[in-house]
Amino acid sequence: MAEKNIDQIRHTLAHLTVAAVRELWPGSQNAIGPAIDNGFYQDFEIAGTVTDADLPKIEAKMRELLPTWTGFEKKEVSKEEALKEFTWNKYKSELIEEFAGQGKKITFHNAPGLVDLCKGGHSENPAKEIAPDSFNLDRVAGAYWRGDEKNKMLTRIYGLAFSSKKELDAYLAQREEAKKRDHKILGRELDLFVFSDLVGPGLPLWTPRGTILRNLLDDFVWELRKARGYLKVEIPHITKKELYEKSGHWEKFKDELFRITTREGHEFAMKPMNCPHHTQIYARRPWSYRELPQRYANTTTCYRDEQTGELSGLSRVRAFTQDDAHVFCRFAQIKEEFNQVWDIVQTFYAAFGFDMKVRLSTHDPKHMENYLGTPESWETAVKILEQIVRDKGVDALDGDGEAAFYGPKLDFMAHDSIGREWQVATIQLDFVQPMRFDLTCTNEKSEKEPIVMIHAAIMGSIDRFLSILIEHTGGVFPLWLSPVQVSVLPVSDKHGAYAQEIVDRLNAENMRAEISQDDNLGKRVRSAKVEKVPYVLVVGDAEVEAKTATLEGRAGKIGALPVADIIAKLKEEIRTRA
Amino acid sequence: MAEKNIDQIRHTLAHLTVAAVRELWPGSQNAIGPAIDNGFYQDFEIAGTVTDADLPKIEAKMRELLPTWTGFEKKEVSKEEALKEFTWNKYKSELIEEFAGQGKKITFHNAPGLVDLCKGGHSENPAKEIAPDSFNLDRVAGAYWRGDEKNKMLTRIYGLAFSSKKELDAYLAQREEAKKRDHKILGRELDLFVFSDLVGPGLPLWTPRGTILRNLLDDFVWELRKARGYLKVEIPHITKKELYEKSGHWEKFKDELFRITTREGHEFAMKPMNCPHHTQIYARRPWSYRELPQRYANTTTCYRDEQTGELSGLSRVRAFTQDDAHVFCRFAQIKEEFNQVWDIVQTFYAAFGFDMKVRLSTHDPKHMENYLGTPESWETAVKILEQIVRDKGVDALDGDGEAAFYGPKLDFMAHDSIGREWQVATIQLDFVQPMRFDLTCTNEKSEKEPIVMIHAAIMGSIDRFLSILIEHTGGVFPLWLSPVQVSVLPVSDKHGAYAQEIVDRLNAENMRAEISQDDNLGKRVRSAKVEKVPYVLVVGDAEVEAKTATLEGRAGKIGALPVADIIAKLKEEIRTRA
Repeated sequence: MAEKNIDQIRHTLAHLTVAAVRELWPGSQNAIGPAIDNGFYQDFEIAGTVTDADLPKIEAKMRELLPTWTGFEKKEVSKEEALKEFTWNKYKSELIEEFAGQGKKITFHNAPGLVDLCKGGHSENPAKEIAPDSFNLDRVAGAYWRGDEKNKMLTRIYGLAFSSKKELDAYLAQREEAKKRDHKILGRELDLFVFSDLVGPGLPLWTPRGTILRNLLDDFVWELRKARGYLKVEIPHITKKELYEKSGHWEKFKDELFRITTREGHEFAMKPMNCPHHTQIYARRPWSYRELPQRYANTTTCYRDEQTGELSGLSRVRAFTQDDAHVFCRFAQIKEEFNQVWDIVQTFYAAFGFDMKVRLSTHDPKHMENYLGTPESWETAVKILEQIVRDKGVDALDGDGEAAFYGPKLDFMAHDSIGREWQVATIQLDFVQPMRFDLTCTNEKSEKEPIVMIHAAIMGSIDRFLSILIEHTGGVFPLWLSPVQVSVLPVSDKHGAYAQEIVDRLNAENMRAEISQDDNLGKRVRSAKVEKVPYVLVVGDAEVEAKTATLEGRAGKIGALPVADIIAKLKEEIRTRA
Repeated sequence: MAEKNIDQIRHTLAHLTVAAVRELWPGSQNAIGPAIDNGFYQDFEIAGTVTDADLPKIEAKMRELLPTWTGFEKKEVSKEEALKEFTWNKYKSELIEEFAGQGKKITFHNAPGLVDLCKGGHSENPAKEIAPDSFNLDRVAGAYWRGDEKNKMLTRIYGLAFSSKKELDAYLAQREEAKKRDHKILGRELDLFVFSDLVGPGLPLWTPRGTILRNLLDDFVWELRKARGYLKVEIPHITKKELYEKSGHWEKFKDELFRITTREGHEFAMKPMNCPHHTQIYARRPWSYRELPQRYANTTTCYRDEQTGELSGLSRVRAFTQDDAHVFCRFAQIKEEFNQVWDIVQTFYAAFGFDMKVRLSTHDPKHMENYLGTPESWETAVKILEQIVRDKGVDALDGDGEAAFYGPKLDFMAHDSIGREWQVATIQLDFVQPMRFDLTCTNEKSEKEPIVMIHAAIMGSIDRFLSILIEHTGGVFPLWLSPVQVSVLPVSDKHGAYAQEIVDRLNAENMRAEISQDDNLGKRVRSAKVEKVPYVLVVGDAEVEAKTATLEGRAGKIGALPVADIIAKLKEEIRTRA
């Protein structure tokens, strides 16, 4: 209900932008203007030029007009009537012709001083419902008419709109905070990853510190999986086309596949996912029901031929590493295996303080052409997942039409420290690939019995998860995950040997300690702060004398302690992933 | 000297094969017949058909003729004279025309009953020098004239030949033993890896047991590297073409590169090696001389577009995983870094009982077109490596012309348990890529100073190393490396719970123990033997009663011991990699 209301407000404000712009730049032609996440946009062919500098003026005009907008007058009109009204606007005229051609009704929604072609969905009484300080105009951008670069480039005005000023301010603060936490900037400052013009965009190279992070996260997932009977496997990153023809991926993924023609003329592809390869490991020999489930885990890289314009830091890349796993099991084992993966997901994300929601993503029965498998098998699969969610006693979000092409799934959404929502882990049920690859086991009656697959990535893409984690933590990683855990700072050169002795002791205990290389103590302290090192140990005359070190955490000085005590304290913090 | 003599013997035996075949199948035309590793071959257009079944008859004829072959008569002849002699042989005629066209001398080397076109290199007195039981005819194969499939398919007879019967027998025994140890067969029996027709040849998929092996080997190398200051990095498996144009690999590797054209039309390649990617990690920021060496380690897969006919098990594949590392250092640091890598190589291979030799592979100064860099930089580089070998007090083999295109290298050759030699690790010096990528550090005088790279893979290809290790050990891996270390065999079902308790205790101590799933004790014992499990624990009434288990090693029964003692014994064996 609240959701609907805010969409109406946002849509209404797009109309109000039209009224304001047409008053300020008479003769400007408005094109489309929908509600979007956090606000709205409105496209124009402006009679003149509008830049970001003009936005306050337009906003002021909108606030001036708003009190007069006490309601929309809805009116169904004929094509001729509509075209006559919009002779001055070639975009609306084109839409009118199109709607008429499709036999759609043509409706005007008119506000004071504005006649507009629209199918509706506005506030009943904008003057009453919209607080003048609950919206703003955000920025101006270029956008092709109908998104087609062969068409004219229009001016798009983006606005932000919420139910109240408080919500708008909260969003602006969150966005400001997100900017400070931008993983692309922090990645460079913390020296975690780098892009090279020679290697190409969307292909991150991982520095020693970034690689430590990746491997620690991967080890954590593996620890949780190992305890549940998973086994590691390994696969090549390419395959003959035939594998994907059989799995169905060749047809579904064809535009995004990196394809290779070998010197002998064979067609190969780089893998966009790992499931078809894993089926071939399962299929290597017959299985007794007693040997199931077989649970294969594999951290490996997938490739997608993304368009350059869509690449963004680690969020959208051409090569991403998945902490992938597939469980091959009997129908009766689905629930137990799903629950085990769910436990891993919960434990893993809780360790970083993410607040989690789950979504049950199902097929769209009206569009079965988007899926492989029969309507009946889909219904059975969805029922099993519904039961799992019910048994957990969780309110799952509704993901109608969000399923993978081979089966329904549970998607986990993480809420980060500044309130943003990210889709992260997913557990997918798959009846289709086991059928296509004829995966079976021999059951109690010595019959061949079809099995199912469960797709169970925890981080999904490690690269994308790291982009989320870096922004969630602002680069302030917990001790166990920090690439450098302890920076030892000698007060002067004569304390260097003692500092080195401490570094060696810490490293011998499997910690990651470094001695600061900077010229003087001031610089050493600043470097440790910029690098967000969890602990700093300062050693001077007093510490050398007493065989201690002065410990400082991120919150401030803790005090001089015997080195053995410091080691014990830090090891416990690492062990518990505090 | 001995080498030369055996080549003469082998070449002589090719001629003797001609004499025997022409006597048995008159009218047969002989083509070429060189000495090769372990023997010789001789090509024919046979007047009739020769199969493996005919070989004893040919061999007998050779032994009959041998006593009459007391020397070759050498004779230089004119083109016309030669052509007249060989009107009956179109292959020799073609060669005569060719030699004459090139202005070469034409010589006959005639033995009793045989006139043959040949440039020489035979035994002085075959009847005296060649023992009749020191050679045999091995097999018949097809071979195109001049290796060109557009030409006629000839009959090739392969022979084995050594200095004595003893050497021949030793070679035959080694070959027989190698057949039993064939890694392709053991790989299947031990369930280590599998090939899928859908994925394609040359692309191994690694099962859980094979993956354990790979990871343990990789961890061992990492343990040795970590102690020497190496850091892990990670890279994508593809790159824009530009990276390889700059490194020089595009030109040198072009036929073997898997190439990709993206949907936007950019040219990408799958990496055939990792060095160019690693330069881009080094190049991400300026370095002070104080921060060098930077040592980057990275276990990652490389790809080569090998022809299908050349693929073989794990020995030659299209995707192979390298335990790669690159050291970025100053000139003055080369020797120390080489020595460190050499230590790692020695420790690693010694752990498996390989006998190692080293080869110094240098450039061929007469063919500088095969290399990047100046003759002067090559001479400097070779001198440094010579010094390193001298200081080690090692006799290095001579590898003239065996260098990589970017620098000289040390190649390590492992001798396996059945006497075969394999080229394994290599340490390569590289002046060229650092220059091409402008890699530098800031030196003591605050000047930009060029640096060098050292390429330092230990196993090289993990896949190929595993093929060698499997055949070296015959699949009988040391305890620390065995995918299943302990198989616990309950005598009957009522001992199952106690067996499971022991398995759980062993696994909790980070060992890999399994309870046998087979139906009865006999089968359980046999399975453990086939899988070459190092230790078997049998538990029956007595063991349950006494809280012991009866330990059997590969050499036989050790006896009933308390479980804690067994754990302690096995852990020590694992810790020391015995």
